[in-house]
Amino acid sequence: MTLPYHRPLFADDLRALGIPEPYVMGRADRVRYAELDPLDHANNTAYFRWFEAVRIHYVRDLGITRYRIGIDPRLVIASTACTFLAEMTQDEDFVCACRTSRYGRSSFTMEYAVYVLSQGAPDLRATGEAAAVIRTPDGSAPHPIPEGVLRIMQERDGATPR
Amino acid sequence: MTLPYHRPLFADDLRALGIPEPYVMGRADRVRYAELDPLDHANNTAYFRWFEAVRIHYVRDLGITRYRIGIDPRLVIASTACTFLAEMTQDEDFVCACRTSRYGRSSFTMEYAVYVLSQGAPDLRATGEAAAVIRTPDGSAPHPIPEGVLRIMQERDGATPR
Amino acid sequence: MTLPYHRPLFADDLRALGIPEPYVMGRADRVRYAELDPLDHANNTAYFRWFEAVRIHYVRDLGITRYRIGIDPRLVIASTACTFLAEMTQDEDFVCACRTSRYGRSSFTMEYAVYVLSQGAPDLRATGEAAAVIRTPDGSAPHPIPEGVLRIMQERDGATPR
Amino acid sequence: MTLPYHRPLFADDLRALGIPEPYVMGRADRVRYAELDPLDHANNTAYFRWFEAVRIHYVRDLGITRYRIGIDPRLVIASTACTFLAEMTQDEDFVCACRTSRYGRSSFTMEYAVYVLSQGAPDLRATGEAAAVIRTPDGSAPHPIPEGVLRIMQERDGATPR
Repeated sequence: MTLPYHRPLFADDLRALGIPEPYVMGRADRVRYAELDPLDHANNTAYFRWFEAVRIHYVRDLGITRYRIGIDPRLVIASTACTFLAEMTQDEDFVCACRTSRYGRSSFTMEYAVYVLSQGAPDLRATGEAAAVIRTPDGSAPHPIPEGVLRIMQERDGATPR
Repeated sequence: MTLPYHRPLFADDLRALGIPEPYVMGRADRVRYAELDPLDHANNTAYFRWFEAVRIHYVRDLGITRYRIGIDPRLVIASTACTFLAEMTQDEDFVCACRTSRYGRSSFTMEYAVYVLSQGAPDLRATGEAAAVIRTPDGSAPHPIPEGVLRIMQERDGATPR
Repeated sequence: MTLPYHRPLFADDLRALGIPEPYVMGRADRVRYAELDPLDHANNTAYFRWFEAVRIHYVRDLGITRYRIGIDPRLVIASTACTFLAEMTQDEDFVCACRTSRYGRSSFTMEYAVYVLSQGAPDLRATGEAAAVIRTPDGSAPHPIPEGVLRIMQERDGATPR
Repeated sequence: MTLPYHRPLFADDLRALGIPEPYVMGRADRVRYAELDPLDHANNTAYFRWFEAVRIHYVRDLGITRYRIGIDPRLVIASTACTFLAEMTQDEDFVCACRTSRYGRSSFTMEYAVYVLSQGAPDLRATGEAAAVIRTPDGSAPHPIPEGVLRIMQERDGATPR
């Protein structure tokens, strides 16, 4: 199967790949040599790069920010975490899936899951989350989640209030 | 003040710098251009690199592993997390401090804190933790924490059983 | 067009994409957020990562090494260089193409070119090269280029003696 | 000896460490775990990070730019290269030294050298260079090297016209 690398995968794409609910968006990639450390497996920081990359797809798709410095709202990460279930090695194909699980007035928490795709069912290798805060373009004040975005987080992602 | 960069800082060093208990070891460094992202502040992955660097000091100092592949016990990260309190920018001097807070038979959890050093008291910018598992050199089985190491974790670090 | 990301592209693939001779192999990818620096464009080190990634495809395809530490010949980079023709920004699709241009007894020099794919002809953004030395698995002595590999470098790549 | 990590080292500092002319500035650092690749030595991209870090010291010291986006002149790298003489491993202390060797109207070429500091004379592990172009803050036009800066490049660094 040829994966549609680097573009957002939506819920239908994820289900077709065998990645379960509640994930609503994903991003396919392959473990690179540059992500390996001397233990010859993907270093723990690589996973946070994958979370970041799918988060950018997610945030752009919802129109929260287009990441233009000084023009668009600024997305600041308040906390992030990852649980590593099994190591990953070079050239493994994976999808990093995500959804929003909780929201506040100007903040939301995303869940992530890294599935390796091989023969058979996707193999869950890591899960994670990140709490993000939306701020004004100059970073000085919180910026509320737009009404329409909030509705998608609630209805599509199944997010609940913080 | 000239910081002793890159070598382990011990409890006395930390107290002299104003970094509070219960941290028992630290590592001084300065935010690099290579750690900045387009928001012009240290990217979230940089903090996990700093946790990793002080963890290597800590683990070597206790003699848990010397990181020789296939010869020494293998230290595997089971989970890690970071809370970002305030952003960090280029050339800020900081100390990443650590201690072990909990332990199991062949695993332990470390706490981290990133303090920026400037005039006055150190400024806490981030906290974090990582759960590590010690495995045999080939990675096939858990490797128990040596008796002497456990005693130091308990007595010096104030670690408690998981 | 959906690019076959992360797998080797061969001469036919390159020509179909409009990438000219003498390049014989390539690797498609997309500029990531993690590769941007505060100038909001791909940092100079990102290009060397792309050279490295296509070099691994090339070296594996020729059977020079499979990169198993202590088992396979060791490929050591003796020198590398990059010329940046125009900056690259997030989400640009590109192919990093390569060929071997010169060879010695146990060393060879590769040429690289980074083409951005958009509407119309591929847009050349950077060129580079790397001189590599093949050494025995323990790194102690040079390891000659196998006869069959040399012939491919000469006949397919158009490589000439150093 | 305690190295003054992360701050610019000037000619006197370099000579005291045994680093020869014509280098006029340097930056001390130590090879990090995060810079190692599966061959357990510093990856080739790490050296370009070290060139970048000392270049920032150099450029700031001369007042060419303070790197404030949209306010200060923009420094763009046109080409860079590195020759690797001997591999570097974790925790090796080194100085990355530099000087400007050639200049044009709004561009200049820097030379770099990486010396490992141990007992005895500094051990040269890599040399490199980078051609940089100064542009206006919005990047639209070349920005000439200020008169005073040019004089320092000529008289202190021994730079010659391109």
